[in-house]
Amino acid sequence: MKAIILFGHGARDSRWREPFDRLAGLWRAQHADIPVELAFLEMMQPSLEEAVASLAGGGATQITVVPVFFGQGGHLRNDFPVLLEECRGKFPDIQLSATPAVGEDLAVLQAIVDFGAGAL
Amino acid sequence: MKAIILFGHGARDSRWREPFDRLAGLWRAQHADIPVELAFLEMMQPSLEEAVASLAGGGATQITVVPVFFGQGGHLRNDFPVLLEECRGKFPDIQLSATPAVGEDLAVLQAIVDFGAGAL
Repeated sequence: MKAIILFGHGARDSRWREPFDRLAGLWRAQHADIPVELAFLEMMQPSLEEAVASLAGGGATQITVVPVFFGQGGHLRNDFPVLLEECRGKFPDIQLSATPAVGEDLAVLQAIVDFGAGAL
Repeated sequence: MKAIILFGHGARDSRWREPFDRLAGLWRAQHADIPVELAFLEMMQPSLEEAVASLAGGGATQITVVPVFFGQGGHLRNDFPVLLEECRGKFPDIQLSATPAVGEDLAVLQAIVDFGAGAL
C-alpha cells in the first residue's frame, strides 16, 4: 500500500504548522486511499522516523517523502538523506523514496507568482 | 509605479536560492511592467531595505512584499514587521504593503498536493 509524508522544517511557534495541517487536510479530502502523515526536521513532531513507523503500522509498504521546502540547501542536501537512510535501515520492508523539494516544481512557483500578481 | 519584492528566509548554501531566482524570472517574463526584486531575511543578499532602495531608485512608489514562506512563525510574526517598519521609516515616500505568507494561499497548497500526487 502506498502512502505519503509531507516533510517540513518545523518551527518554535506552533502556528507555523497551520499550512502543513491544511496541506494534509487537502490531501485526505482528495486522495483518501493514500494515507498521509506530516513529519518535521526539527522543533516539531512527529519526526520522519515516527511518521514512517505510523504509516508502516497502518500497512503502508511504499512511502514517498515530499520535502515541503522551497530551496534545496543544507537541510535537504545533507540532513535529509541521512534521516532517510536511517529510516531505510530501521524499516527494511518499506520502500522509501523521496521527491525533490516542492520549490523545484514549476506549478508551485507559478501559483506563487499568481498569488503575488493577485495582491497588487 | 508599482513593484514587488519576493521575500525569502535565506540560507548558507547558495544553491538554496535557485527557486527564488526562477520565481523572479517567471515574474519578469509574465509581468514585465512590474519590477521585481528578491530580498532575504538572513544569510543572503539583498536585504529587504536594499531591495526597497533599489526599486525606489528605479521609480517605484508602491511596493508589495510577498513573504515566500510556508508557515507564519516567529520570522514573519516578529522579525518581518520590524524590518517593514524600519523600511517605512527610511523610505517615507514609498507606500509599502505586505501580503500573508504564500503558504496561506489555497492555490499554492493545491499545487503542492498535485506535485505529491504526481510523484506517487
